[in-house]
Amino acid sequence: MSRLRQPRTIALVGKYHSPEIAESLRRLAEYLHERGVSVFVERETAEHIGKLVDLSRWVTCGFNDIGAHADAAIVLGGDGTMLNAARRLARYCVPLVGVNQGRLGFMTDIARQDMLSCMDDLLDGRFMRENRMLLAAEVIRDGKEVATNMALNDVVVDKGAIGRMIEFELFIDGEFIYNLRSDGLIVSTPTGSTAYSMSAGGPILHPTLTGIALVPLCPHALTNRPVIVNDNADIELRIAHADDPRVHFDGQLTLDLQTGDSVRLRRSEYTICFLHPPGYSYFAMLRQKLQWSERPKG
Amino acid sequence: MSRLRQPRTIALVGKYHSPEIAESLRRLAEYLHERGVSVFVERETAEHIGKLVDLSRWVTCGFNDIGAHADAAIVLGGDGTMLNAARRLARYCVPLVGVNQGRLGFMTDIARQDMLSCMDDLLDGRFMRENRMLLAAEVIRDGKEVATNMALNDVVVDKGAIGRMIEFELFIDGEFIYNLRSDGLIVSTPTGSTAYSMSAGGPILHPTLTGIALVPLCPHALTNRPVIVNDNADIELRIAHADDPRVHFDGQLTLDLQTGDSVRLRRSEYTICFLHPPGYSYFAMLRQKLQWSERPKG
Amino acid sequence: MSRLRQPRTIALVGKYHSPEIAESLRRLAEYLHERGVSVFVERETAEHIGKLVDLSRWVTCGFNDIGAHADAAIVLGGDGTMLNAARRLARYCVPLVGVNQGRLGFMTDIARQDMLSCMDDLLDGRFMRENRMLLAAEVIRDGKEVATNMALNDVVVDKGAIGRMIEFELFIDGEFIYNLRSDGLIVSTPTGSTAYSMSAGGPILHPTLTGIALVPLCPHALTNRPVIVNDNADIELRIAHADDPRVHFDGQLTLDLQTGDSVRLRRSEYTICFLHPPGYSYFAMLRQKLQWSERPKG
Amino acid sequence: MSRLRQPRTIALVGKYHSPEIAESLRRLAEYLHERGVSVFVERETAEHIGKLVDLSRWVTCGFNDIGAHADAAIVLGGDGTMLNAARRLARYCVPLVGVNQGRLGFMTDIARQDMLSCMDDLLDGRFMRENRMLLAAEVIRDGKEVATNMALNDVVVDKGAIGRMIEFELFIDGEFIYNLRSDGLIVSTPTGSTAYSMSAGGPILHPTLTGIALVPLCPHALTNRPVIVNDNADIELRIAHADDPRVHFDGQLTLDLQTGDSVRLRRSEYTICFLHPPGYSYFAMLRQKLQWSERPKG
Repeated sequence: MSRLRQPRTIALVGKYHSPEIAESLRRLAEYLHERGVSVFVERETAEHIGKLVDLSRWVTCGFNDIGAHADAAIVLGGDGTMLNAARRLARYCVPLVGVNQGRLGFMTDIARQDMLSCMDDLLDGRFMRENRMLLAAEVIRDGKEVATNMALNDVVVDKGAIGRMIEFELFIDGEFIYNLRSDGLIVSTPTGSTAYSMSAGGPILHPTLTGIALVPLCPHALTNRPVIVNDNADIELRIAHADDPRVHFDGQLTLDLQTGDSVRLRRSEYTICFLHPPGYSYFAMLRQKLQWSERPKG
Repeated sequence: MSRLRQPRTIALVGKYHSPEIAESLRRLAEYLHERGVSVFVERETAEHIGKLVDLSRWVTCGFNDIGAHADAAIVLGGDGTMLNAARRLARYCVPLVGVNQGRLGFMTDIARQDMLSCMDDLLDGRFMRENRMLLAAEVIRDGKEVATNMALNDVVVDKGAIGRMIEFELFIDGEFIYNLRSDGLIVSTPTGSTAYSMSAGGPILHPTLTGIALVPLCPHALTNRPVIVNDNADIELRIAHADDPRVHFDGQLTLDLQTGDSVRLRRSEYTICFLHPPGYSYFAMLRQKLQWSERPKG
Repeated sequence: MSRLRQPRTIALVGKYHSPEIAESLRRLAEYLHERGVSVFVERETAEHIGKLVDLSRWVTCGFNDIGAHADAAIVLGGDGTMLNAARRLARYCVPLVGVNQGRLGFMTDIARQDMLSCMDDLLDGRFMRENRMLLAAEVIRDGKEVATNMALNDVVVDKGAIGRMIEFELFIDGEFIYNLRSDGLIVSTPTGSTAYSMSAGGPILHPTLTGIALVPLCPHALTNRPVIVNDNADIELRIAHADDPRVHFDGQLTLDLQTGDSVRLRRSEYTICFLHPPGYSYFAMLRQKLQWSERPKG
Repeated sequence: MSRLRQPRTIALVGKYHSPEIAESLRRLAEYLHERGVSVFVERETAEHIGKLVDLSRWVTCGFNDIGAHADAAIVLGGDGTMLNAARRLARYCVPLVGVNQGRLGFMTDIARQDMLSCMDDLLDGRFMRENRMLLAAEVIRDGKEVATNMALNDVVVDKGAIGRMIEFELFIDGEFIYNLRSDGLIVSTPTGSTAYSMSAGGPILHPTLTGIALVPLCPHALTNRPVIVNDNADIELRIAHADDPRVHFDGQLTLDLQTGDSVRLRRSEYTICFLHPPGYSYFAMLRQKLQWSERPKG
């Protein structure tokens, strides 16, 4: 992991509909300003938070302008807020810092109470960069691309609501792999391996692993197992039968599918960069989140 | 996958104590000889098989000489015979061909009845190379290395026979990861992911994935999960408490350990090369072995 | 298991929308008639099948009349057809015989080609009775019962389609057990333990076990495990938070729920009776369906 | 659960080799004596503890005499101490009270610091009885019974130390069920379902469930699943192939087996009775041990 040089322009992104972050965001903006940083507030954040605290001193702008001008973005919220910001900013290579608003997140590793003291490390160039891959998805219907999207955690194809199951065919690099009847399939990045994939029985993939996990949801074939493929795999799901198939991106965006549709997945050409404070450890975070035991004393 | 040029010298390795392969091996040796190939028979194979069929025409030699002179080795037996040959030949870069003696193996992908017809493809340079990583292990006691070994499938540290459990500490790249009480830990390559690791609930890792799986055996911590790390990880297990700890290499070689011992694991500097006939597919083999359903007709 | 005395009146129930069973049903009706049995054809079956084959000779009646008059019902179709018939006939104590229309089902254990020869065993009183418990469910909203239903396999409460998860509280015999965020919960009978519950990682419960399985779907709490309770347990799920909660009965009937609703589950006062041909074995069926290995020869 | 009438004679059983319980045991004996109870100290406990505290005032006797004369036995230690006492006292119907010596156990539900105040509830007849089934096992070799034993948690047949796997045939009520190659099989009572069985992926069985769990250890057949059978099942494992097979009772007693041996298991004719303080809840204990989330506040 390399260090980030001192950032001069920083964007603030907050969890929408969360009045409880308003005061934190205001204090953070002022602290950064005092330290000589140009502060942007993301537009939708400002619209929600601006009713609660006075943000009129700060430049408000959209993700495109943040992408064009900011040296870093600080996200106040939870992992969900990070996922959204990551998908919006990935193409601009703006690194992200995550400040959690309550309990530790898998991606928001700075506690709110440590926020200001951590800023000195950030501004003085002591944060470390860590790159995370994203998935690029396209939906093909009748030979035409009808939608595209990115995901930092996972792309999930499932049976929807009225369906009793989904049957799909999986292809990798154009080769037929299997036909599966199940509730769905999770295609997960290493980052997503601690999210929905883990609830479905998938393994933990270290962020430096260049792999993609394919984790079935309630497979009817009892010998089906999670499969981890190389990150250069070209993955395709063709919906063979389903009453109400859907595709979900990071559990935040959903599209209806149809029988016959293909969902094609590849590692995205973009990479999102997380910034971690000195002393950050992926495994220490995991140990705390999963309540793995510490080393016995003595 | 690249092709293997036409091999001129081929070594034959058979499953020991398996009279049923004697006739196959003799026929294979004669066929290769007729095709102008120099044939070696591995010494221990010859000692066992030579009582049953006349092998006096062929040069008999050890793995070292096979390593120095053979362009390829053909292994007749099961996955166990391949594992042994792979560990013995890895340092010499001799590629391996696997001929199974009954049912399809994960590594022995040529059926005995197709053996001779496949040889034409081999000799004419139509086999494809596929590289598989190995693990290099060393056992450290009181600061000194007391044993080293390689494994193509897995290195397993377990509680042994009289022990009720083992407690060990896991370190990756020198960082403490977790302390676990369990029956043991499987450290598996992608090749080993379809062996013991799979019985223990581990995921399938595609052979091209550059990763290593850490799969606990009956962990006492209910939140412990299989973890997949990058293949450049430096993995260390320190035995904290155990009555009868052991380490197993590919389930074939076993060493007694002591409390306080460390088992250090890295990707081996050597890589073993498998040779596959035209049309080979890893996923097709998996589908057949795991009885995954085929694509529905029509 | 006790035997069924010779049945004099038999009802035939077929899979709807399945023309392929029409001819089987007609042949079966004629064979039973020749053997002196009074034959009823279930009304909806007759409406669908009657377009394809001439059923005008046979009495057509609804499940209520079948319940009042038939000594047994023969179901032609798959497990789904059996589930529906069982829920409809449970209150009348009419025993069921299942004839599968293709591959062996968990409940339809007579192959179509053996159908007529099996009838002799049935009519001569050589079939064995096996009782299976059902679940009785009621949905409580604002203190009032808004729906009731039965299930032979399972009652599933899940997040629905637009929901990202469901949070519910589980009570047993009025005692709070746990609060869980997940995709849902399967409450399964022993009969249902080989259906959806198995795909979700639940254990197999032998039909004679007097227990109910509670199997979470993708639980967020990594220490949550399937729990098997006694069949006299009073189980209650209260929906704490969900965008689109639903409850499903045997995967065939679905009701929308609301936050605050309770789903209360008990063993039904009714029991459905399956009739099995001589030589039937639950474990032999399981072994065949799950492809467990047979005893090695010799 | 019914209540226990006021006990007049109480035996004390402690964890051997645990000096830290000496003082607790001495204080408990004196407190009970002051309350007019006749106090026995189990002989082996007395031999170990008697070096540390003066126990000469109390009658020392073996498990047989405890069985003949005591109204209840109080066990100071952990779940292991309870398992041993339960197997020794099951035939005498002496109920057990468990006092843990550190962290809460699955069976030792009274904290040491609450010990004396709980005694008033015990002596005044406010403790509740809860019955737990045991397993009775016999080992058959060449048609003869060579060993018998009981288990409160589980009987485990496994591959031992030098073995690479065990192959056994499972019979229930004399019917062949399956042939399995694996690391072993756990046969568990409901009490044992939260012990080794849980680490191996088995479900939780409520103590009132009249069932026995069969949980494979690392099965080679990927479709093998835990099976729960009725508590009147007659279970038999025949060792078909194994290098070093063993059978373990509650993880505390081990016997060597041979290929061809049968291990026969039934519910024991004896039942052990646990005594719980007022307010005890099995699920509350489970929630605390497994760190299941509590009901959200508000």
